[in-house]
Amino acid sequence: MRSSPPNPELLALNSATVREKWSLREVIAGCVRHRFRGVSLCRDGLAQIGAKEAARAAHDGGLTVTGLCGGGRFPASDRRGRQAAIDDTRRAIDDAATLEARCLVLVAGALPGDSKDLIGTREMVRDGIGEVLDHARSAGVPLALEPLHPMYCASRGCVNTLAQALDLCDELERGAASLGVAVDVYHVWWDPQLKAQIERAGEKRLLAFQISDWLPSSKDMFADRGMMGDGVVDLPLVRSWMEEAGYRGFHEVEVLSSGNWWRRDPNEVLATCRVRHQTAC
Amino acid sequence: MRSSPPNPELLALNSATVREKWSLREVIAGCVRHRFRGVSLCRDGLAQIGAKEAARAAHDGGLTVTGLCGGGRFPASDRRGRQAAIDDTRRAIDDAATLEARCLVLVAGALPGDSKDLIGTREMVRDGIGEVLDHARSAGVPLALEPLHPMYCASRGCVNTLAQALDLCDELERGAASLGVAVDVYHVWWDPQLKAQIERAGEKRLLAFQISDWLPSSKDMFADRGMMGDGVVDLPLVRSWMEEAGYRGFHEVEVLSSGNWWRRDPNEVLATCRVRHQTAC
Repeated sequence: MRSSPPNPELLALNSATVREKWSLREVIAGCVRHRFRGVSLCRDGLAQIGAKEAARAAHDGGLTVTGLCGGGRFPASDRRGRQAAIDDTRRAIDDAATLEARCLVLVAGALPGDSKDLIGTREMVRDGIGEVLDHARSAGVPLALEPLHPMYCASRGCVNTLAQALDLCDELERGAASLGVAVDVYHVWWDPQLKAQIERAGEKRLLAFQISDWLPSSKDMFADRGMMGDGVVDLPLVRSWMEEAGYRGFHEVEVLSSGNWWRRDPNEVLATCRVRHQTAC
Repeated sequence: MRSSPPNPELLALNSATVREKWSLREVIAGCVRHRFRGVSLCRDGLAQIGAKEAARAAHDGGLTVTGLCGGGRFPASDRRGRQAAIDDTRRAIDDAATLEARCLVLVAGALPGDSKDLIGTREMVRDGIGEVLDHARSAGVPLALEPLHPMYCASRGCVNTLAQALDLCDELERGAASLGVAVDVYHVWWDPQLKAQIERAGEKRLLAFQISDWLPSSKDMFADRGMMGDGVVDLPLVRSWMEEAGYRGFHEVEVLSSGNWWRRDPNEVLATCRVRHQTAC
C-alpha cells in the first residue's frame, strides 16, 4: 500500500544541494525557473547579499523561505565562546525573521575542543537554546532543532535522535510552541523509534522535513548523500508518517554530494529533484 | 571523580585488531606472550585451523575465549538465504561451544539485496534469533546481540541501539538467560540513552564489552577506529556504568584501523593496548 505521489507544490530546495555551483541569487532564480515553491537557505550563503535582499528576491519570485540554517553551535570551551554562540544565534533569528522563514534550523554543535564530556556538552546545548528561546518567540521565529546522524556526534552536532531532540523541546518549552524539530531522513532513517517519535512530535513540533537518500555503498561520512530514489530509504513510508502526524509543510531536498550532484549542472539537479519528488517520495 | 584503573587481568584482544598481520595461531601466541588473559575470535579466521585446534591453543596458553564473532546475518532476499543464515549460525554456535567461548557475538545483518524494507529486515533478525535460540541454550552458548553504529544500518547490521537490542532480548527470551548484548563503545558511545540502557541490561544481559575510541577527525566509516585514549570517548565513565550494572567480564580491544594500527607491528599494538588499558580506560 503506497500513498499517492506528493503534492508537487510542496517541493522545496535546500540551497546546500547546489552550493558548489550557484550563488544565492542564482539559487533563488533557479528555484523560480524550475517552479519550486520553497527554498531553504544557509546563513553562510546569506552573507553574499544580506537577509533583506535575499528576502526580496525570494518573495518577488513567489518563494516561501522554508528555513534558515545556521546558529545554534552552542557548545564551547569557555564562557566567552558560549556567549558568542548565543549572540550569533540571536542574529540568526533576526535574519530568519527578515526572511519570514518558517523556522530557524539549529544544528546543535559538537564536543568543544578536546572535550570528552558528552553529557556536559549536551547540557550546553540545552542551556544555549534556553537563552535564545524568548528572542525567537518575540521575533516570531520557531526554532527547529535538527537531530544529526550519530556519526556526526563528535564533529558537528551532539543531538542525535528525534527522541533526544523532543526531550529537549519538552524540557525547555514553556507556553506557546516556538520550539520543534527538523526531520532530515538522511539523519534519522535508521532509527527504530522513528515512527513513534514522529507521532510524538505531532503537528506542533514538526517544523521541517528534509529529503535525500542513504547510499548503502557510502563510505564518506560528510558529503555523500544520494538523490531520492537512489538509496535505501523508504521515503513514501516516512512521508506517510509525517503526514499522519499532521505535517503539512514543504519537502526540502538537501543532497550534499561532493562526488556526484555538486559536480553537475544545477539545472539538471533541480530537474531531477522535481522528477524524483514525484517518483520516489 | 574517576575510578581507579581497570584490573589488568581483564584485558582481552579481539583478533580483528591485528588481523592484517597475524594468523590465528600468531594471535593466540601473541596474546600469551603479552600476558593478555582473554582473546575474542572471528569466525573467518577460525577456518585457518578449526575450532578444536584454536580451543587447544588458547586454553594451553591460559586464555579465555571471551567471544566468537560470526553468524547472525539473518536477513536475506529469499527463504533459502534466510535458512542458510540460520544453519550457519547454528554451526557458529557449535564452534563457540568447542572454544568454550563466553558468548557468540551476533552481528545482525543489513538490508538484503536492494530492499528498502527496514522494518521487515529487522523482523527477519528477530525471527532468525528465535530459530537458533534453543540450539544456543542446549549448547550452553549465550548469544550476544551487538548493536552496530547507525552508519552501518544499510551495509552491516540493522540493530543499531542498545535499546533496540534489549527490546529484542525481552521479546525473545523465554526462561533462562541465553540472550544478551555486546557493548562496543565505538558503536554506542553517542547514544543519549547509553547509561540508562546499560543499567536496564544489567549483569544478566551484559555479555561482552569492547573498547576502542572514536576519532573526531574520522571520515572513513569502515576501519578508522582509534586506540583507547586517542579519541573522544570517555572510556572510564562507560566502564563505570558497565561495572555499576554488574558487568565483571573482560575488556576486549577491538581497533579496526586500516590506516594506522593494522599497519603496525602487532607486538607494538598489543603493548600499546596494555598501556592504554591502564591509562585511558
